[in-house]
Amino acid sequence: MKITLAQINPTVGDIGGNVKKILNVINTYEQESDIIVFPEMITTGYPPQDLLFESNFISSVESSLSEIKRSVNQCTVVLGTIRKEKEGLYNAAAIIHPSGKIEFRYKSLLPTYDVFDEARYFTPAVSNEPVDVVISDKSHLIGVQICEDLWDDAYSQKVTSELAAQGAQIIINISASPFSVDRIHERINTVSQKVKSFKIPFVYCNMVGAQDELVFDGQSFAIDENEKLISQCNAFDEDVLTFDLNEKIEYIKTLNQPEEEQIYHALTLGLKDYFNKTSHNTAIIGLSGGIDSALTAAIAQNALGKRNVYGISMPSQYSSDHSKSDAQKLAELLGIQFEQIPIKSLYDSFTESLSVFFQNTESGLAEENLQARIRGNLLMAIANKKNALVLNTGNKTESALGYCTMYGDMCGALSVISDLNKSQVYKVCKWINKHYKREIIPNGTITKPPSAELRPNQLDPFDYEVVSPLVDSIVTENLYTSDLTKEGFDINLSKDLIDKVRLSEYKRRQSAPGIRISKKAFG
Amino acid sequence: MKITLAQINPTVGDIGGNVKKILNVINTYEQESDIIVFPEMITTGYPPQDLLFESNFISSVESSLSEIKRSVNQCTVVLGTIRKEKEGLYNAAAIIHPSGKIEFRYKSLLPTYDVFDEARYFTPAVSNEPVDVVISDKSHLIGVQICEDLWDDAYSQKVTSELAAQGAQIIINISASPFSVDRIHERINTVSQKVKSFKIPFVYCNMVGAQDELVFDGQSFAIDENEKLISQCNAFDEDVLTFDLNEKIEYIKTLNQPEEEQIYHALTLGLKDYFNKTSHNTAIIGLSGGIDSALTAAIAQNALGKRNVYGISMPSQYSSDHSKSDAQKLAELLGIQFEQIPIKSLYDSFTESLSVFFQNTESGLAEENLQARIRGNLLMAIANKKNALVLNTGNKTESALGYCTMYGDMCGALSVISDLNKSQVYKVCKWINKHYKREIIPNGTITKPPSAELRPNQLDPFDYEVVSPLVDSIVTENLYTSDLTKEGFDINLSKDLIDKVRLSEYKRRQSAPGIRISKKAFG
Repeated sequence: MKITLAQINPTVGDIGGNVKKILNVINTYEQESDIIVFPEMITTGYPPQDLLFESNFISSVESSLSEIKRSVNQCTVVLGTIRKEKEGLYNAAAIIHPSGKIEFRYKSLLPTYDVFDEARYFTPAVSNEPVDVVISDKSHLIGVQICEDLWDDAYSQKVTSELAAQGAQIIINISASPFSVDRIHERINTVSQKVKSFKIPFVYCNMVGAQDELVFDGQSFAIDENEKLISQCNAFDEDVLTFDLNEKIEYIKTLNQPEEEQIYHALTLGLKDYFNKTSHNTAIIGLSGGIDSALTAAIAQNALGKRNVYGISMPSQYSSDHSKSDAQKLAELLGIQFEQIPIKSLYDSFTESLSVFFQNTESGLAEENLQARIRGNLLMAIANKKNALVLNTGNKTESALGYCTMYGDMCGALSVISDLNKSQVYKVCKWINKHYKREIIPNGTITKPPSAELRPNQLDPFDYEVVSPLVDSIVTENLYTSDLTKEGFDINLSKDLIDKVRLSEYKRRQSAPGIRISKKAFG
Repeated sequence: MKITLAQINPTVGDIGGNVKKILNVINTYEQESDIIVFPEMITTGYPPQDLLFESNFISSVESSLSEIKRSVNQCTVVLGTIRKEKEGLYNAAAIIHPSGKIEFRYKSLLPTYDVFDEARYFTPAVSNEPVDVVISDKSHLIGVQICEDLWDDAYSQKVTSELAAQGAQIIINISASPFSVDRIHERINTVSQKVKSFKIPFVYCNMVGAQDELVFDGQSFAIDENEKLISQCNAFDEDVLTFDLNEKIEYIKTLNQPEEEQIYHALTLGLKDYFNKTSHNTAIIGLSGGIDSALTAAIAQNALGKRNVYGISMPSQYSSDHSKSDAQKLAELLGIQFEQIPIKSLYDSFTESLSVFFQNTESGLAEENLQARIRGNLLMAIANKKNALVLNTGNKTESALGYCTMYGDMCGALSVISDLNKSQVYKVCKWINKHYKREIIPNGTITKPPSAELRPNQLDPFDYEVVSPLVDSIVTENLYTSDLTKEGFDINLSKDLIDKVRLSEYKRRQSAPGIRISKKAFG
């Protein structure tokens, strides 16, 4: 039995565009395949959110199925879509037989944790049964399930088991499973466990592409009844692969990319698709000479090409020569466009205009934020002039602690590295230089101590080696003082940082969307 | 039977402060009352959101109950809290008997629509039974239910009916029901229907106070078995009222406030509590001379007092004399602090700094946004200097259409009128002048045509009389082109506005939280 994994990249809401991609795959592969499998909700893109409340949208999706059906003549197509029944709306798999008959199977387990909110939109299936698929006049029972249906640990309903008990000879799971570091290994392990229990092959077809914060990494795969990986699509890219379940095949090994490489590719795809799907091609980035803006620029250059990235250095009287030269050097190494706009005269004009409020006061937060906001203002003006988007360069550690200025360095359409802690930022930068075998991120940027340079001789008030993992434990694992001290963290520092994370929530509420690479990101 | 409605204003997360308020009421009223009723989740405040994932928070709430119990000696207390059982976390009513015994009843219907997301946190009760409350040695069966349990239209489970069938002699509903215009009438009608069906009195105790976007309007009430209103607490204020169900009482009528008055008080409470609960007392508002900033300033003055409100006029070369004088006149009429900071020289400094990008280009969006962002920058600098909060002055119609500048006029910690359409803004302003019997909002502001004044002779590109209701239909009722034309709206205008609403979603994602007064607000 020949199965095609059609790992394609849809756009949320663009039903016409998505159907075109689907038809393209069907037309190319139906000669060589018995079953072509597309990811979850491939007609709508994922997550369509409140579009699901629009009756026009739902009827357009339903009529798109008829269009797809007309192109299915020789093989069976399994694809993710939505379907309205009188009990409610379902997250559905459509099984389109070459006879023209369409059957549906519905998702049973609706995730409501974290970024998922499916119970808001969908009715769960209460039972599941395999689909009878005829291939060369022979009947095959195929168990079709959708994404979360595989991950049944926390649920009483066990979909894979139900399907196997009813004689399913293969399980096909269609998913829209977001990337996080090493997530692919969890998917393969979980599927392997199911194969071990039920002794039937398992085909897992995942979405690829990014939608706002979410990156879908693809890496669709198939595991045969001996628990061996027999096929795997590319990571972070569209890929269509056909394999034959009945032929003796060579077993393959899954890619074992280091964390840094996974992150670099995930962020590149996230950035690229954000621009593609919002019809932009030019990015504006404030270059401070520091490590965060350097990494953001490197990823932008990789995603958009060097001609489409502008690095703007905006030194103040507090900027060190080192910072200015590092910013310029980065731009040269990346080959991106570069301008320097000093902000001292603008800053002086502001303090003069504000003299009635500023005179005879001590210099402090207002003055520091003012510099950051002048820079934000310059970047936004350039972006407006060039129909470009500003990229935010904040990292997760700073965002967690509120070490950032609203409408200043928090400006931007997209936060590229906002889900990386400071240690990960350094690690990915070092990996880039190593991977490309040359200096791309200036060595000076990697080795100098971090500073916001908003006042004389300012250094970041954190030792990131200590603070980064501590903030991660607070944000990602939801740990509190007692747990943190048990893990060996200092009690006073823990208390202080927990307070900072809570009190800066109001800033994150107005922050740009950020690309997710961990299991718990802000957003 | 004497029942006390304890309509108090909690703060989310401030368990100690909330318990103090609860104890204060119990100590004052337990002599004169048989049952004291507090609103839903009064120990935690509503909505506590992800605090509910913190085991420390849950155990603090649970131990606070023991503290409350020690103060309950003479009457029974019914209060909203949370409770962890082995199956999960419940949204609970604690019934504290004077004997020291505590019983719990759990919420059955968990709302997940709109602002509610309770299924994310809570396990639903599967059944309900009345509580046996002994008053003067006589047993009474009291049906206790929580908020949504009353609104059972869309659910198969009918909590009020279940309780009545088991002999409940009174129903007590504890709620955290947010304000929307005329919502009180829906509450009274729904309760009256239940009374009519089951012939038992119904006591409805609602939360009061604001928490970020949500305003709880109080207006707790009781309806006797003849479907007559016998007691009602104040709107938008803490209020504790005792009534005797067995005494012959005079029937009262519910307040019939006009929409404008309800909105004015709701926004005042929303603003006041936002400042109180974040420990701020000073507001900074950019005064353009237009209607939106005028209404925002009037509400701020009402909530915080005139000494604590700064109106800042920031005219450009495009500002009319009329605008400048209207801004100053407003400040005088309100008695608030006032400063004028012209922005022309700042604007010129920016365009000079940006000359490499601006020269030989046509003046357009970049130049217009720049002015708005200079103003935002000035307001934020003043706020930082004075430890104050900037109030955003945008209305719902403009926000829906994206007629606003990110990091410019979209700056602010709180959007005061972001859930009012442009017509409502005018109506409330006129009501204020009428209500206070003098000019508070300058007549010139009310009568002149609206303009952003970002370029010469610019007028707002909308006829708000037509656009306001059309945008409401798109946003609130989710109507699409076909429905809109059926309702008599122009087809091309409808299409254009639907596109504008969709395409400006990215701006609203970074907007300040806004006070809700309708059933569907952005947020």
